[in-house]
Amino acid sequence: MFAIAITLLALELRVPEIEEAGTLLQALAGQWPAYLAFLLSFVTALIMWANHHRMFNYIERSNFTFMLLNGLLLLGITVVPFATSLMADYLAHPPDDTIAALVFNGTFTVTAVLFNVLWGYAVRNDLLDKRLPPEFGENITRQYRFGPLLYLAAFLAALISVPLSILLNVGLALFFALPPSLVRRLVGRGN
Amino acid sequence: MFAIAITLLALELRVPEIEEAGTLLQALAGQWPAYLAFLLSFVTALIMWANHHRMFNYIERSNFTFMLLNGLLLLGITVVPFATSLMADYLAHPPDDTIAALVFNGTFTVTAVLFNVLWGYAVRNDLLDKRLPPEFGENITRQYRFGPLLYLAAFLAALISVPLSILLNVGLALFFALPPSLVRRLVGRGN
Amino acid sequence: MFAIAITLLALELRVPEIEEAGTLLQALAGQWPAYLAFLLSFVTALIMWANHHRMFNYIERSNFTFMLLNGLLLLGITVVPFATSLMADYLAHPPDDTIAALVFNGTFTVTAVLFNVLWGYAVRNDLLDKRLPPEFGENITRQYRFGPLLYLAAFLAALISVPLSILLNVGLALFFALPPSLVRRLVGRGN
Amino acid sequence: MFAIAITLLALELRVPEIEEAGTLLQALAGQWPAYLAFLLSFVTALIMWANHHRMFNYIERSNFTFMLLNGLLLLGITVVPFATSLMADYLAHPPDDTIAALVFNGTFTVTAVLFNVLWGYAVRNDLLDKRLPPEFGENITRQYRFGPLLYLAAFLAALISVPLSILLNVGLALFFALPPSLVRRLVGRGN
Repeated sequence: MFAIAITLLALELRVPEIEEAGTLLQALAGQWPAYLAFLLSFVTALIMWANHHRMFNYIERSNFTFMLLNGLLLLGITVVPFATSLMADYLAHPPDDTIAALVFNGTFTVTAVLFNVLWGYAVRNDLLDKRLPPEFGENITRQYRFGPLLYLAAFLAALISVPLSILLNVGLALFFALPPSLVRRLVGRGN
Repeated sequence: MFAIAITLLALELRVPEIEEAGTLLQALAGQWPAYLAFLLSFVTALIMWANHHRMFNYIERSNFTFMLLNGLLLLGITVVPFATSLMADYLAHPPDDTIAALVFNGTFTVTAVLFNVLWGYAVRNDLLDKRLPPEFGENITRQYRFGPLLYLAAFLAALISVPLSILLNVGLALFFALPPSLVRRLVGRGN
Repeated sequence: MFAIAITLLALELRVPEIEEAGTLLQALAGQWPAYLAFLLSFVTALIMWANHHRMFNYIERSNFTFMLLNGLLLLGITVVPFATSLMADYLAHPPDDTIAALVFNGTFTVTAVLFNVLWGYAVRNDLLDKRLPPEFGENITRQYRFGPLLYLAAFLAALISVPLSILLNVGLALFFALPPSLVRRLVGRGN
Repeated sequence: MFAIAITLLALELRVPEIEEAGTLLQALAGQWPAYLAFLLSFVTALIMWANHHRMFNYIERSNFTFMLLNGLLLLGITVVPFATSLMADYLAHPPDDTIAALVFNGTFTVTAVLFNVLWGYAVRNDLLDKRLPPEFGENITRQYRFGPLLYLAAFLAALISVPLSILLNVGLALFFALPPSLVRRLVGRGN
């Protein structure tokens, strides 16, 4: 599902129509918002995929509710190509770029919440692999906990400045690309 | 196949063209039928997926006929994105919304019938896993039996009122999201 | 790959534009060639999928050449959605329906040839599972042998009559849906 | 992911609009750049897929960094359908065909670099299967080493002649379709 959604992102890359008296090179250069949005979404979706994959490495059992919660998370993922298209088309057209950035980072905020919901359900309902040392799961819990608030910050930042909002988004993607054990050392105070 | 069809649903979410003197926000708000149709289809397809998955958990053997029957069921699934597009485009344009709702719920009615055909074939041809207690299968049989009639009701309701038809559709999706053992206690008389 | 190509077939089902003074029902009815082409392609691709799946059940080893030959077969499969679109758009517009039917059945003819090439390579290079009784493989060889010639007949029939060509296509799909052991009894003379 | 990207290539094959006083046959013939670009991309992507598959046969362990590097490689792959569309639309429209060929071969150049980065990381970080004889890995290293330079040559050739650039691309695809052990005998000097 991640694989499909990520590959569909590339459908956003559309062959440009050349305007009169222009060249293909100019037309391609004029598409920079589409490339930026594609790259941003690709990297974010890829990191989400790696996180989802890692989460499932720790999960041994499943049940119907878990499957439905996972489905809700996938709902967030399937909306990413749409949010990306919106960014690609309106990033260079203020003031509508604000709405586009709100939808874009709003999608990721909701997805971050759903990641926490899914993981929390797995922890509380004892679906994890018991042979793993408990700090594996705790590290994930600690890293995920930041997601919703930080993406909410990127979401709200769009109201002030769209470039700032995008910058925060990039920073967040990199944060979630860090291994959870490193994050713990960086931000964890206690054990 | 479910994963692909579900992800393709999101292609229906199209970046809106802004009409003169409007904003992106207004344009997005004007797309509510597309969002409603997408959500409805996503949730329904997701629940179908979970049911299909659960059904296959009980099935141990397969044969050529079973594969072809399963293929017919998948035919129903692949048509869902089209039926969703139709709803998205015509939900706000009566009287054509009736036709759109008929096609939408008609697709699910046929899919519900095909679910029963596939499951019935598996039961009659002894393709189930024998180690499972028989009531597992019986619970599924009981729950599925309601599908075609209830979706037919949602289908016919579209002739009277499109919102009623959609409401029934939502209710049905929720009904099939219930675990079969619970359904049995709710509606089962015997045993 | 089959799953993706089959699901993409459904993209051909496009929400119709309503012409002036028409209803959605009329617009949908006017799309019958798209539905016919979709159904035909879906059923054919499904049966190809089942055959491909069965073929791979008998194959135990693989090598680089086999992978590339399999890739060529998949090339045939990925073209099916395009050939289907062509049929959908031109079936009701003679004389171009002849060209569309030629491309449609030509695609299947080439695919049938590639099925034979792939299977023949597996047989000659000893990639089959040795524990299977030899008549399993022989039955497949016997059934596949008919494919190219019969699809060629459907291809050539398009020059005389497009409906005849489509009818042959339907018949062929059904023929390949038969289990190989039955085909052997129907057409096999020896052993 | 390869499977999806390859299947999406076929979306580039669009049913032609017939111009006035023309036939479907003429319209299809006029689409030759689309067919050429599709074939080229399909074969290249298929060979990449086979190589990626073979590479993963030798890899036994994985880690988060490896997953992200693999994701970057997949980024290259998902751009292939876009680069193909560009070729399809501008191959017959000089001077823009030069830009299209640069983007096309540039995509493959970057992908070739990423293949080397991924493989090099696996070798250096001891992710390979230790039971394999070391020359398996060395043969791959040797063959991949040529990729970036040769694709760069095809990239630069586009500045001189687009057909030459395409010819080099075809040659390169065939080169990577060769088994690594054969390549070693052809170009290797030492052991």
